[in-house]
Amino acid sequence: MSYKVPVDDINFNLKVMGLLEQIQALSAYEEISDDLVDAIIEENSRLVEEEIAPLNVVGDQDLPSCEQGEVSLSKGFKEALALFAEGGWQSLAHGPEFGGQGFPKLISTVLFENLNAANMAFALCPILTDGCIEAINQAGTEEQKQLYIPPMVEGRWTGTMNLTEPQAGSDLALLKSRAVRQDDGSYRISGQKIFITWGEHNASENIIHLVLARTPDAPAGVKGISLFVVPKFLVNEDGSLGKRNDVVCASLEHKLGIHGSPTAVMVFGDNQGEVGEGAIGYLIGEENDGLRHMFVMMNEARFAIGLQGTAISERALQMAWAYAQERLQGNAVEGGHRDTVAINQHPDVRRMLMTIKSLTEGSRATALYAASCADLAKHHEDSEQRAHYQAIYEYLVPIVKGFATEMAQEATSLALQVHGGMGYIEETGVAQLYRDARILPIYEGTTAIQANDIIGRKTMRDEGAVAKYFVAEILETASRLAAHQHADLKFIGKALQAAAESYAKVVDSILSLGAERAMRQVFTASVSYLMLAGYMHTGWQLARQALVAAELDNGNNKIATALFYAAQILPRVDALAHAVFDSEQCVRSFEGIDFDA
Amino acid sequence: MSYKVPVDDINFNLKVMGLLEQIQALSAYEEISDDLVDAIIEENSRLVEEEIAPLNVVGDQDLPSCEQGEVSLSKGFKEALALFAEGGWQSLAHGPEFGGQGFPKLISTVLFENLNAANMAFALCPILTDGCIEAINQAGTEEQKQLYIPPMVEGRWTGTMNLTEPQAGSDLALLKSRAVRQDDGSYRISGQKIFITWGEHNASENIIHLVLARTPDAPAGVKGISLFVVPKFLVNEDGSLGKRNDVVCASLEHKLGIHGSPTAVMVFGDNQGEVGEGAIGYLIGEENDGLRHMFVMMNEARFAIGLQGTAISERALQMAWAYAQERLQGNAVEGGHRDTVAINQHPDVRRMLMTIKSLTEGSRATALYAASCADLAKHHEDSEQRAHYQAIYEYLVPIVKGFATEMAQEATSLALQVHGGMGYIEETGVAQLYRDARILPIYEGTTAIQANDIIGRKTMRDEGAVAKYFVAEILETASRLAAHQHADLKFIGKALQAAAESYAKVVDSILSLGAERAMRQVFTASVSYLMLAGYMHTGWQLARQALVAAELDNGNNKIATALFYAAQILPRVDALAHAVFDSEQCVRSFEGIDFDA
Repeated sequence: MSYKVPVDDINFNLKVMGLLEQIQALSAYEEISDDLVDAIIEENSRLVEEEIAPLNVVGDQDLPSCEQGEVSLSKGFKEALALFAEGGWQSLAHGPEFGGQGFPKLISTVLFENLNAANMAFALCPILTDGCIEAINQAGTEEQKQLYIPPMVEGRWTGTMNLTEPQAGSDLALLKSRAVRQDDGSYRISGQKIFITWGEHNASENIIHLVLARTPDAPAGVKGISLFVVPKFLVNEDGSLGKRNDVVCASLEHKLGIHGSPTAVMVFGDNQGEVGEGAIGYLIGEENDGLRHMFVMMNEARFAIGLQGTAISERALQMAWAYAQERLQGNAVEGGHRDTVAINQHPDVRRMLMTIKSLTEGSRATALYAASCADLAKHHEDSEQRAHYQAIYEYLVPIVKGFATEMAQEATSLALQVHGGMGYIEETGVAQLYRDARILPIYEGTTAIQANDIIGRKTMRDEGAVAKYFVAEILETASRLAAHQHADLKFIGKALQAAAESYAKVVDSILSLGAERAMRQVFTASVSYLMLAGYMHTGWQLARQALVAAELDNGNNKIATALFYAAQILPRVDALAHAVFDSEQCVRSFEGIDFDA
Repeated sequence: MSYKVPVDDINFNLKVMGLLEQIQALSAYEEISDDLVDAIIEENSRLVEEEIAPLNVVGDQDLPSCEQGEVSLSKGFKEALALFAEGGWQSLAHGPEFGGQGFPKLISTVLFENLNAANMAFALCPILTDGCIEAINQAGTEEQKQLYIPPMVEGRWTGTMNLTEPQAGSDLALLKSRAVRQDDGSYRISGQKIFITWGEHNASENIIHLVLARTPDAPAGVKGISLFVVPKFLVNEDGSLGKRNDVVCASLEHKLGIHGSPTAVMVFGDNQGEVGEGAIGYLIGEENDGLRHMFVMMNEARFAIGLQGTAISERALQMAWAYAQERLQGNAVEGGHRDTVAINQHPDVRRMLMTIKSLTEGSRATALYAASCADLAKHHEDSEQRAHYQAIYEYLVPIVKGFATEMAQEATSLALQVHGGMGYIEETGVAQLYRDARILPIYEGTTAIQANDIIGRKTMRDEGAVAKYFVAEILETASRLAAHQHADLKFIGKALQAAAESYAKVVDSILSLGAERAMRQVFTASVSYLMLAGYMHTGWQLARQALVAAELDNGNNKIATALFYAAQILPRVDALAHAVFDSEQCVRSFEGIDFDA
């Protein structure tokens, strides 16, 4: 089997760490029993292990193709999407009012990690559809919701996000696509969008494009962007499909990885549909208010992409772990034994495996913890608690996205390294994970964008309130560990305490820089702060797990993982802290360089 | 132009830092005038920029193919190899007794970095040929030298290294290929070798394979390995070519990168030549003494592969630097300006560019410094000095190979990141550098193998003598910087001092572990020590450059680069030191994990 759902670690988070119990205490989720969760994870495992995972390599080799606007998917993908829809998996997290199953985010996070680990390129389709559903649900009229959402929840239609244009990537202020209001209240959309994930394909009855564009009299910049729904086929009032809209795939990109995901150049209003010139679109929300709605959708999408980081690291871990058991090479390090051993006996191979394992399990714990906070933010009976959990969740989103996607680079690269020369041969399969993973710190907001988010909106804006809350929580965990009689737990506690103290100093330092309006220093240090926070939270979650595991009979694995991380990985926090403390030198160094030479 | 030789930085190392003068003082190199060096760099630049660099993308897309044992190269590669030979570039570093030009390693290092930056896949052919020449020169008989070396020096024949077998990668003790002595003193070789770089092609008159194999009565393990020369076409006494030998390319690998380099599965003794069963080979040196000769060759090859790390980072830097000048996105961080700026105005893009720049320039300085030590080790008139420089050089080889290839992962990845979404599109070209670079920490000894070398043979064996010599040198540089009136130089000095103190503690700690025979701890920490030493030496070289630059009118660039590195990168030394200090915890963590589960 090429991938196996990590059921034990999932259950450790859900049950041993008590995340599920916390959600079950919410009146909204009283019906989410342990048995139900077990059953759905089992059913999900069958689907992703047996049906979706084997298609991962197929998508890499049998690339989607575009001919005259029609996109054929990789072999088996259409059938797999049908299975996904039939199983009701697209409906999982959505409300019953649209035919959804209303599962908490905690559970959908588990299941989507599995789907992404099985096949990241495939999983992008449901992820984008989810985002599309959420945006319409948030900002659409009741009529729009009823028209577009149920078929997407059902999995019969898929959705896309159309933001990027050749001149407008991270900077959406530069968008040029035009939307001209018609007498009937609809709009005619024209322009070109690039990097549109699953922008066109032959596996769903319809595709709902969400498109950012400007009306003719819109103000310049981000305040003049509106959000439109542009269906591939127009939808009649009764939900049946009408004319082919004037939105066409011009070509597909040749990418480093995620080959199975068709990345389309989409042309709107090139008179190629059946509706005359200009794609017909419908405003979602108010004119010039599009970015706000898109941001809600993007926040969810960012969390989902962060999950891809954990997912692909898990799959890389499984490949490397298995290879290290099988591959015989070298003798035991102690000497004296002349028998060739499996390479998982070598300390450096263990170092690599444990690095991947600790980063993967730690990032999973952070994501699931964040997901449970999102559920609590929505459904806690106390409004102050809701606000508290919402703030926590929002702080964690750039960490889940920014950190887990960066650490996936290290995880997949180490997994390749464990394979030695075989890792560089495409047939081995691990190189695909390495190529696929490289998109993660780029799409849905680059790492720099996540860093701007966490340092600006999530730290300076609340004067470090959430960050300081976490510092206090981490120090509390650290003191409990340090007081433990077990030497390894003590060690973890001390390492965690030292790191948390650096974290606290860094937050103070950032707030001082903000107070001085030394913004160039702030944004020089922002990615380092993001990574520091990521290493900190990963270490905290692993330490929390170790503390709980110490009370169990079979907790050695978790203690060992946290111990390894505390000794080997957590010290990176201090190195990253220098980027903040020495940001003045850093900015001054830029002044000595002619960047235009 | 897709790549431009970094002449200014090369000359900074050669002339401003005085490396060339030191070599010119050797009687062996009295004739290497500044003018000669200028002229050869200029001529080399023309070749690599105009002829070799444009083929880089061709090799990536128009893959070599193998049909019935015959390998066709990517378009243009055969012609480029002919140009390379005609220009006398293969003969550069070799002795006049074989028709070589006898240039010092310092100069060949400069020129080979340029060739690798232009086209790493192409450069592998001359690199392997150089290794082959050196091994025969070291261990062959006078007759063998005269027969095989001159045509390789001339560039008419190429050479290969045949080590790896499916079951024997890093562990050469597991080699199975057989060599049976014949009555005429020759041997019949049979077996299969994999990952043979440039193992077969149609661009040279003959290919000289160096092959490791065992005689029937050889002892097991590495002490039973012999080295053979196996020419593709047998060579008559007068140097003319004879029968086609029984060594055939069975297939080429599909690799993640360096597509232009044909990586062959070679079959010896499958009765496919004109010589009957068993490839005809000739022993080089003594039976069972093959590994020793191969190691000399590998040491040279390791240095060459380390240079590839610097080279591909330089090319990635140039691509990212140019893109960041052109790409308009976002506003100035200070606010108030609504004009869209080039992304090289953004602090985080500058951070990425400076990270690549400082790592690249620092690793180049380390390589050139090491090369000058190799020249001094060969030609200094004082035998103690020769031994001193030899020891220094040998300590630096695993750093040049292990560190520069690992840092090339970061450099090429950051260069891709600077390109945003465009970086993930293959047509942009930077993804190729990212894919190509990934082989570097694997071939010619993985990073773990380099780490074993530096921690075992190069640190514990001499009880830290060379490492401590470097600590003293670095502290001396640091104190000169710290005493400087320039605030930035002071800062660099203090940062360097702190790092050197960690380095010293780490060396002591390793020696203690060695004294206690705590080998599992040693080899748990080995890669971290290697990387620590790499960051340390990179920082030292940049700091030395800054000290010299402070006396120049146009030295700002170098001071700024060292300042950036001291503030942002050098703190990694401390984080890595923990791997050594806490290696006990690390080893204990392994005991809590079931690696066979």
